[in-house]
Amino acid sequence: MNPDLRKERAAASFNPELLTHVLDGSREKTRRRREIENLIMNDPDFQHEDLNFLARSERYEVAVRKSANMVKKLREYGIADPDEILWFKKLHLVNFVEPVSLNYSMFITTLLNQGTTAQQEKWLLPSKGLQIIGTYAQTEMGHGTHLRGLETTATYDPNTQEFILNSPTVTSIKWWPGGLGKTSNHAIVLAQLITKGKSYGLHAFIVPIREMGTHKPLPGITVGDIGPKFGYDEMDNGYLKMDNYRIPRENMLMKHAQVKPDGTYMKPLSNKLTYGTMVFVRSFLVGEAARALSKACTIAIRYSAVRHQSEIKSGEPEPQILDFQTQQYKLFPLLANAYAFQFVGAYMKETYHRINEGIGQGDLRELPELHALSAGLKAFTSWTTNAAIEACRMACGGHGYSHCSGLPNIYVTFTPTCTFEGENTVMMLQTARFLMKSYDQVHSGKLVCGTVSYLNGLPSQRIQPQQVAVWPTVVDIDSPDSLTEAYKLRAARLVEIAAKNLQTEVIHSKSKEVAWNLTSVDLVRASEAHCHYVVVKLFAEKLPKIQDKSIQNVLRNLFLLYSLCGISQKAGDFLQGSIMTEFQITQVDQRIKKLLTVIRPDAVALVDAFDFKDLTLGSVLGRYDGNVYENLFEWAKQSPLNKTEVHKSYYKYLKPLHSKL
Amino acid sequence: MNPDLRKERAAASFNPELLTHVLDGSREKTRRRREIENLIMNDPDFQHEDLNFLARSERYEVAVRKSANMVKKLREYGIADPDEILWFKKLHLVNFVEPVSLNYSMFITTLLNQGTTAQQEKWLLPSKGLQIIGTYAQTEMGHGTHLRGLETTATYDPNTQEFILNSPTVTSIKWWPGGLGKTSNHAIVLAQLITKGKSYGLHAFIVPIREMGTHKPLPGITVGDIGPKFGYDEMDNGYLKMDNYRIPRENMLMKHAQVKPDGTYMKPLSNKLTYGTMVFVRSFLVGEAARALSKACTIAIRYSAVRHQSEIKSGEPEPQILDFQTQQYKLFPLLANAYAFQFVGAYMKETYHRINEGIGQGDLRELPELHALSAGLKAFTSWTTNAAIEACRMACGGHGYSHCSGLPNIYVTFTPTCTFEGENTVMMLQTARFLMKSYDQVHSGKLVCGTVSYLNGLPSQRIQPQQVAVWPTVVDIDSPDSLTEAYKLRAARLVEIAAKNLQTEVIHSKSKEVAWNLTSVDLVRASEAHCHYVVVKLFAEKLPKIQDKSIQNVLRNLFLLYSLCGISQKAGDFLQGSIMTEFQITQVDQRIKKLLTVIRPDAVALVDAFDFKDLTLGSVLGRYDGNVYENLFEWAKQSPLNKTEVHKSYYKYLKPLHSKL
Repeated sequence: MNPDLRKERAAASFNPELLTHVLDGSREKTRRRREIENLIMNDPDFQHEDLNFLARSERYEVAVRKSANMVKKLREYGIADPDEILWFKKLHLVNFVEPVSLNYSMFITTLLNQGTTAQQEKWLLPSKGLQIIGTYAQTEMGHGTHLRGLETTATYDPNTQEFILNSPTVTSIKWWPGGLGKTSNHAIVLAQLITKGKSYGLHAFIVPIREMGTHKPLPGITVGDIGPKFGYDEMDNGYLKMDNYRIPRENMLMKHAQVKPDGTYMKPLSNKLTYGTMVFVRSFLVGEAARALSKACTIAIRYSAVRHQSEIKSGEPEPQILDFQTQQYKLFPLLANAYAFQFVGAYMKETYHRINEGIGQGDLRELPELHALSAGLKAFTSWTTNAAIEACRMACGGHGYSHCSGLPNIYVTFTPTCTFEGENTVMMLQTARFLMKSYDQVHSGKLVCGTVSYLNGLPSQRIQPQQVAVWPTVVDIDSPDSLTEAYKLRAARLVEIAAKNLQTEVIHSKSKEVAWNLTSVDLVRASEAHCHYVVVKLFAEKLPKIQDKSIQNVLRNLFLLYSLCGISQKAGDFLQGSIMTEFQITQVDQRIKKLLTVIRPDAVALVDAFDFKDLTLGSVLGRYDGNVYENLFEWAKQSPLNKTEVHKSYYKYLKPLHSKL
Repeated sequence: MNPDLRKERAAASFNPELLTHVLDGSREKTRRRREIENLIMNDPDFQHEDLNFLARSERYEVAVRKSANMVKKLREYGIADPDEILWFKKLHLVNFVEPVSLNYSMFITTLLNQGTTAQQEKWLLPSKGLQIIGTYAQTEMGHGTHLRGLETTATYDPNTQEFILNSPTVTSIKWWPGGLGKTSNHAIVLAQLITKGKSYGLHAFIVPIREMGTHKPLPGITVGDIGPKFGYDEMDNGYLKMDNYRIPRENMLMKHAQVKPDGTYMKPLSNKLTYGTMVFVRSFLVGEAARALSKACTIAIRYSAVRHQSEIKSGEPEPQILDFQTQQYKLFPLLANAYAFQFVGAYMKETYHRINEGIGQGDLRELPELHALSAGLKAFTSWTTNAAIEACRMACGGHGYSHCSGLPNIYVTFTPTCTFEGENTVMMLQTARFLMKSYDQVHSGKLVCGTVSYLNGLPSQRIQPQQVAVWPTVVDIDSPDSLTEAYKLRAARLVEIAAKNLQTEVIHSKSKEVAWNLTSVDLVRASEAHCHYVVVKLFAEKLPKIQDKSIQNVLRNLFLLYSLCGISQKAGDFLQGSIMTEFQITQVDQRIKKLLTVIRPDAVALVDAFDFKDLTLGSVLGRYDGNVYENLFEWAKQSPLNKTEVHKSYYKYLKPLHSKL
């Protein structure tokens, strides 16, 4: 083991194994996860080539091979539990994506949620076996978030009992679906349904796009790759243009809405159920944010323990860069953040399953809050994580810029999360709509429950926005409860300001919609404060549940660092409304510096507890063992530019210049 | 022209051409810049292929060809003025880098600064003609910012009158130099000079690394490419290992320090002069930050004018996304920032040339402040720009993630600026050292001048950090002078807090160095506030110099937006020390929202004024003309994955899975 890392591990105040159990949920879950991971690590069929050295077409090729191998192995090992598949995939893919993933995550899921029993019988088995390789085509070149704006049409023809699919404009071309460009032979296409001359809005259709067996695009279908992106090199995100393309009536997913053979439209019983999938995906993304941030922290903190640079005292050996206060201040708050998001991710997963069970029994009461919460937390955690990964990368200095760090790949693979499954600003505004609705309920004398129950305590008859929310309060900056209370007051104050500003705009504006737009900056700010409060609250609530005192202690320090750094960064929010005093803010800044030195000896153990395999990190700098510099040198030698000793470019372009001097 | 852009241009309150003259410096400079740019745009020898579709080795190949072509054309057109070369290069390279650039920017520059007349006579002409292709090798695998830590040695052997160069460890391998991997045949190597058994610190040596003519690495030299990076794909950043590699005594650059034939070391007259190059490079980088940010804003704002999405009022056509307050709030402050940095960049360039003239006449008085200012501003502008480019990219939604936007390339090409030529945190701490020195001077009764002269006004006998800097003041949030004053007070307060905290730590710590480390978070914060003040001040001072009233008016709005957003984001800093009241902060937030609507009609004209050619932007989304979606579709079709209609991966890996069902 690297001597610096050995020293760090020996100095930790706690046993990281116990913390790993906390993160996994139990000792047994940790054991089983490792068992699955070992299948991959010990299986010679998994060649763990470094995709960094390959061109995009080669990366695609390797990814398809890996996908196929994975499907084979999952069958072979009999792994079917969704969590276990996830562990398997995560280790197998190593920060990369796979072309057939949408077949499982979107095609099959939509089939299950929206297909009739007959449809499931027909399509499910072949798609599970990858005979049918499906994707999910919703977004169009000119239309993303706003679903009503989608232009693709599916017009029913009762004479042939077919739907005629059309992409009437350039902007209506389906754009972005993963695996669409080269890999898939079917797509679930979202299109505006037209029957008997009337439009009924978006519905889902199973559309064959390539001929089975030959894999050639079918007549009427134009399909291809949308070109290179920031990341997702292995993924053939694609486009799809349909020209009078006919599919049988039975290819419309008809579990909810239906079109009868004569073209009669039967509307669904409830629209609310389509909520479910989105809520699931967004809840899942909160956990993904936690995971990406934990990875980035692992790499940056291990490297900072190994890297020696500069000097604190003149003439002494170069210290570990982890000993610089500025480096600690960059990384430890992010580490605390990673833990906060881990607990939020676990909470969202539990909550989703709990509420989903309720839905199964017809209980939809908690759905609106879960919807608002998952939207806001998806945005809050992904924005934070996005910036944090880059902060980790830059904290690794020059080497962070090299793919040897693994960090550029983590970043480019993660950053679409801010945009997909609901653009973050739009998500924040959805949360804001729930907050405004809750605020109005309180003002009309009703009580609200759940995470917004703090609104019940708002004094009501205020007029001036700047005078709202003056609570007499003393914040104890060492108390999780008291800090949570401070975040709650801040959220309440910003929700109230947004609501008052919205009311003012409604009076001055031509319409409610214009007023909403002219208040949207305040609304986003209110949602952020609400989400921040929820994260702090969930973290605080986790602490007393931890059995082991040493673990509880380190997590408590991380909690304090997380919540105090939030206060320091948004000091204005806490000073306004007199939630905290100027003197307290000064104390917060001093306390943060103390906490950095307290956390310092445990930093490496805290990232070890995330228990990433070297393989999963895909990072030379974050490797658990060995000499980072020797590893780096070996890695660099694989560069394709090193394959030719004397480069033809020199002879071809540079040498001819000399004679012309 | 795109109809949305035409409408926007018609609605502007000013003539962007006049603003372009302001940015270029004069009407004549604009004319000449365009003349140079037209040489490239109208020259069929410049093939403007899109590097996004190529593999790394191909990109390198194209870049070398482009480099060679550029050198030829510069000779042909007789362009020699540094500014003009820059215009030429910028348009020619389009967000990409070139393998021979270090020959000009570093090899020749160092030769001029540190070589004797004889050395310049020998090396200058062949390197200008690219017979000698040089690079600059300073950074090592294990050592970056801390120059004393560099391990490479150059030991003088008086018997043969040679230096023996060695890379004694893995960590001492030279790492990162641009063009070193494949392109260069010489490097200026920085090594610890040892003569007569004594070490004299870092000195520069000209080291042949490849054989002239054959381009093969010379015996004793191990050289290669360091592998793939986040960006800089076209650049062969390289490594260099030297094993008892001998070079003649004459290859040490001896303008300042010298080694006599018998090995006697002659030290340089002054160490201060080495300051000069660094100050120049960092001043230049401030302008580069402005340029990168201006580019990103141009793309994001044009696209936001063209993109229609979602709805403000139900049932009406989809509005331009530039009409959403949240989108304006994302982009307009960044646009204001771009203008602020443009003026700071121009100021740094002027100041550098003025002070450099002084240095030529032996006047070094202003050098320390310029050094501190260029270090801090390099960090301040590059950090801000770094985050801002990503904000622009994400403001373009999904398409921002595609290379069609041009934004990923702008980002990955810019982001190393935060690390190279002095890592940003280290830079901020250098500025802090100057601030602390100035603060101490004031406290010992001396006056300081220049940008830190505000420290002269600090009341002195204070003890508690939290009580400092209570100035009675009324900030007029519509007055550039008053806002500049507010930023000045904030800087003064944070400098004082850092100084007081440093004093406290000195009392409690074992040493000054430890105290410095334990205060470094405060020190960085003080430097940031100082730099922020300088940027606001320079922007405010620019306003009265503008002749045209319509231009002055739009710039004034941008100034207000820039400075008010800074206050809103750092509200805590302005509330503490009672620089502003809570009521004023509320007013600031309201005023920002108003400014967004005021700037809205001018937004497109404001980015047009940057006058980027479509070619320079390298962006489908930011193109001046045409239908963005049709352009996008044409662009995507070029994807290499579209070259084979039926992909072999399907047959090879996916089809075989079916039979195993």
